[in-house]
Amino acid sequence: MRAVFVGTGGSWPSPERNVMAFALGMGREVLLFDCGEGTQRQLMRSSVSFMRISKIFVSHFHGDHFLGIPGLIQSMALNDRKEPLEIYGPAGTEELVQTLTRLGYFTPTYEVRVKDMQSGDEVKCDGYSVRCMDASHNVPTLAFAVEEEPRPGKFSLEKAKELGIPAGPLYSKLQAGETVTHAGKTFTPDMVMGPPRRGRKVVYTGDTKPCAEIEELAAGADLLVHDATSAADLEEKANAYGHSSSRQAAELAAKAKVRTLALVHISPRYEETGQLLKDAKDVFPNVILPKDLDELEIRLADG
Amino acid sequence: MRAVFVGTGGSWPSPERNVMAFALGMGREVLLFDCGEGTQRQLMRSSVSFMRISKIFVSHFHGDHFLGIPGLIQSMALNDRKEPLEIYGPAGTEELVQTLTRLGYFTPTYEVRVKDMQSGDEVKCDGYSVRCMDASHNVPTLAFAVEEEPRPGKFSLEKAKELGIPAGPLYSKLQAGETVTHAGKTFTPDMVMGPPRRGRKVVYTGDTKPCAEIEELAAGADLLVHDATSAADLEEKANAYGHSSSRQAAELAAKAKVRTLALVHISPRYEETGQLLKDAKDVFPNVILPKDLDELEIRLADG
Repeated sequence: MRAVFVGTGGSWPSPERNVMAFALGMGREVLLFDCGEGTQRQLMRSSVSFMRISKIFVSHFHGDHFLGIPGLIQSMALNDRKEPLEIYGPAGTEELVQTLTRLGYFTPTYEVRVKDMQSGDEVKCDGYSVRCMDASHNVPTLAFAVEEEPRPGKFSLEKAKELGIPAGPLYSKLQAGETVTHAGKTFTPDMVMGPPRRGRKVVYTGDTKPCAEIEELAAGADLLVHDATSAADLEEKANAYGHSSSRQAAELAAKAKVRTLALVHISPRYEETGQLLKDAKDVFPNVILPKDLDELEIRLADG
Repeated sequence: MRAVFVGTGGSWPSPERNVMAFALGMGREVLLFDCGEGTQRQLMRSSVSFMRISKIFVSHFHGDHFLGIPGLIQSMALNDRKEPLEIYGPAGTEELVQTLTRLGYFTPTYEVRVKDMQSGDEVKCDGYSVRCMDASHNVPTLAFAVEEEPRPGKFSLEKAKELGIPAGPLYSKLQAGETVTHAGKTFTPDMVMGPPRRGRKVVYTGDTKPCAEIEELAAGADLLVHDATSAADLEEKANAYGHSSSRQAAELAAKAKVRTLALVHISPRYEETGQLLKDAKDVFPNVILPKDLDELEIRLADG
């Protein structure tokens, strides 16, 4: 599972940071969270292919979070995409995407499937799900949690040897959950497999003030990607516009017991981000402030 | 007068070239021709300010030529623009821009004035005009010519001395077009001024096959910015999609007797553009193939 910080800036782009987009590589498919203007070109500079995006989740309808959708959709068609593309977002997403796909002359080569979501809804996918909760911004905004299904426990070579099961195809069957027999004895998977390991969890907040819903959604996440528009000294102003300071993001990360916090939606006022990072680190040690196109491999917590 | 090649790529962006936009700095105002996705951020990396754009001319409604408009308009408002913004383009521009300014949540801080144009129309401005003609693309497309008003001729110091006019304020008055008297004699401006000098002319084609209208529009231009989607070997394919090869652009530049030809809308298939440039140079020597953000000062032909 690979996180790509496609665009990390707030409100409008700067030469340093493009507007918001966050991609999550899940095997051969890519999930995209928000899609500000210029996202397709940012993706072309990253390790993930824009053609592999299977689902786009839009947090809300401020331009810096969705204006890259029509260009991305069109470039996918110009590159002859056939696979359907799914788009999810708050109430109004179906109508908005319908408008976006009708701008100018454009003939899609594939189906765009759009679905409005509301707080608490979940999209079940192959091996994972995406759940949303209301964020607290100045317009309706959703935060999203990607949660992998639990994975089988680890196979214990030691136990298998103790039980006298010979190495080879029987090991694979047990790992795949099958019961096997050998020398007249029956062996069930639980005799050689450790307890199931929880899957990875990544939470993306969109724009938001700190709020209880997100604290709940983020509980135990391996990665929390949180609005951090300002440093602590401008917290009041950030909150007034429905945003968080980096310190507030860190406080929430600590309460939600996440593994890693990534600060994004950095206001274009900050060319220098040392203070933002310091304000957060004072509260929560495992914090990063990614540059555009930084990538992060998310490993299982227990290896 | 400064030309900025904001985006020079065709159809979809590549890491090397963004989609189309061409800016012309005219004193303190900036004219923008086409505005593909990501144009605002490209401008932030150039020598011209996106806040100084007074007029946008849209050639046609393919996404790579206009999808940067909503983000640009929104960033201007977020940066508290007060001056009105004018947008011109082919029939349907008013309706399109109305849709673009209503996407998502957005409160403009200034007026956006939109006007549909048709072939032959001219926008009169302060010291210059912008005239359009039909291009030949697969959807209705306009090409634009910016023409400066003629400038006063050069003041001849030699003639003024011969006539016995003393250096000083009388020279300024004559240069400003006033008739003056000295020592009982009357001197008119034409006695010391050379013939009026023609203003500069810049032509931007949008997407087009070579066509008579553009040849006429481009006549004598100081700079012709022309579609050059392909090298000569793929000319037939380029034409089938309503585009030109670099050789065809050069042939038209030669016939129209332009000073400099700039090749743009380079297909993303070309990472290496040597052949495109060579095909054009074989036909017309004064040709450039700008990279994104290259700039060109356009001087008066006669100094």
